[in-house]
Amino acid sequence: MKAYEKRDYPVSEVRRFMEPGPIVLVSSAWRGDTNIMTMGWHMVMEFVPSRIGCYIWSENHSFGMVRDSRQCVINIPTVDLAPKVVGIGNSSGRDIDKFTRFGLTAVQGAKVEAPLIGECYANFECRLVDSSLIRKYSLFVLEVVKAHVAASPRYPRTLHYRGDGVFMMSGANTSRYRKLFKPQNL
Amino acid sequence: MKAYEKRDYPVSEVRRFMEPGPIVLVSSAWRGDTNIMTMGWHMVMEFVPSRIGCYIWSENHSFGMVRDSRQCVINIPTVDLAPKVVGIGNSSGRDIDKFTRFGLTAVQGAKVEAPLIGECYANFECRLVDSSLIRKYSLFVLEVVKAHVAASPRYPRTLHYRGDGVFMMSGANTSRYRKLFKPQNL
Repeated sequence: MKAYEKRDYPVSEVRRFMEPGPIVLVSSAWRGDTNIMTMGWHMVMEFVPSRIGCYIWSENHSFGMVRDSRQCVINIPTVDLAPKVVGIGNSSGRDIDKFTRFGLTAVQGAKVEAPLIGECYANFECRLVDSSLIRKYSLFVLEVVKAHVAASPRYPRTLHYRGDGVFMMSGANTSRYRKLFKPQNL
Repeated sequence: MKAYEKRDYPVSEVRRFMEPGPIVLVSSAWRGDTNIMTMGWHMVMEFVPSRIGCYIWSENHSFGMVRDSRQCVINIPTVDLAPKVVGIGNSSGRDIDKFTRFGLTAVQGAKVEAPLIGECYANFECRLVDSSLIRKYSLFVLEVVKAHVAASPRYPRTLHYRGDGVFMMSGANTSRYRKLFKPQNL
């Protein structure tokens, strides 16, 4: 399993990877422990500052870790990681160390204590900037404070969950309609 | 441009179409006017009740229409509608009637006044159930109260925006990993 070579990436541009709706892995650290969860419910909320909203169920072990540490990393896995993505979603950090169990590399972040997953195409270091919606909606409002993206390929082949065990894999890209956009809407 | 033949669909299952992250069209009605906007920032927030969060910029004409009518329809376009999706995003309902300009069919909803777009694969009738996050985050918390989904194909070919004028088109589906899921996680 290769670890991608990454470059720094502007945080205001992480929406280019989040907006198409990939399944992501959320890594966290708290009091000497680390964890990883599989997450499908997230949205871009702003690009300056780079804000992402995501849903973490209160029963997930990561729920308390992200809430209490006020940090996490959003990691984007590619199709080759599908069996690990499912395995991570099946298991709980209460019972196992997921980095060890799934053979993933914890890479130190630049701005947060939570570890990056080396084998993921992109890693977005996040701070929890608003915890007021957690109780009502399990909604974590995050700000991306540092982004690392693989130098190639330009467009990763990502997993998009359809439910019932079915993944859609990202398909072809087209810039055929680019000329139709108003420049300010690109 | 064909209008899909639709069937009723359980509202708790609309996440199967929203979670992969497609570009959607939001239709609305207010005081005799209708409008359509292109939207890329949305997330599933719950499935019972069927709750969707979405971002509508305050500068969009739809912002006031959805806020004041407290209703809208989320419509999922397929790849063949790409030029209209871009055109709808380029223009404002302040200046034109988008149903007329883009040759789209306004279909009456069952539970809301906002019109469904007949040419879209799926239509989710929504009520605005929490407007308290609009001012701070432009976040509209919607509940899907009625869903209509095309009888076929099973998996629509959807558009996913990558930014800079590039769309990813949804690719192949795989259930190869289905056997790895814990049943309760499907």
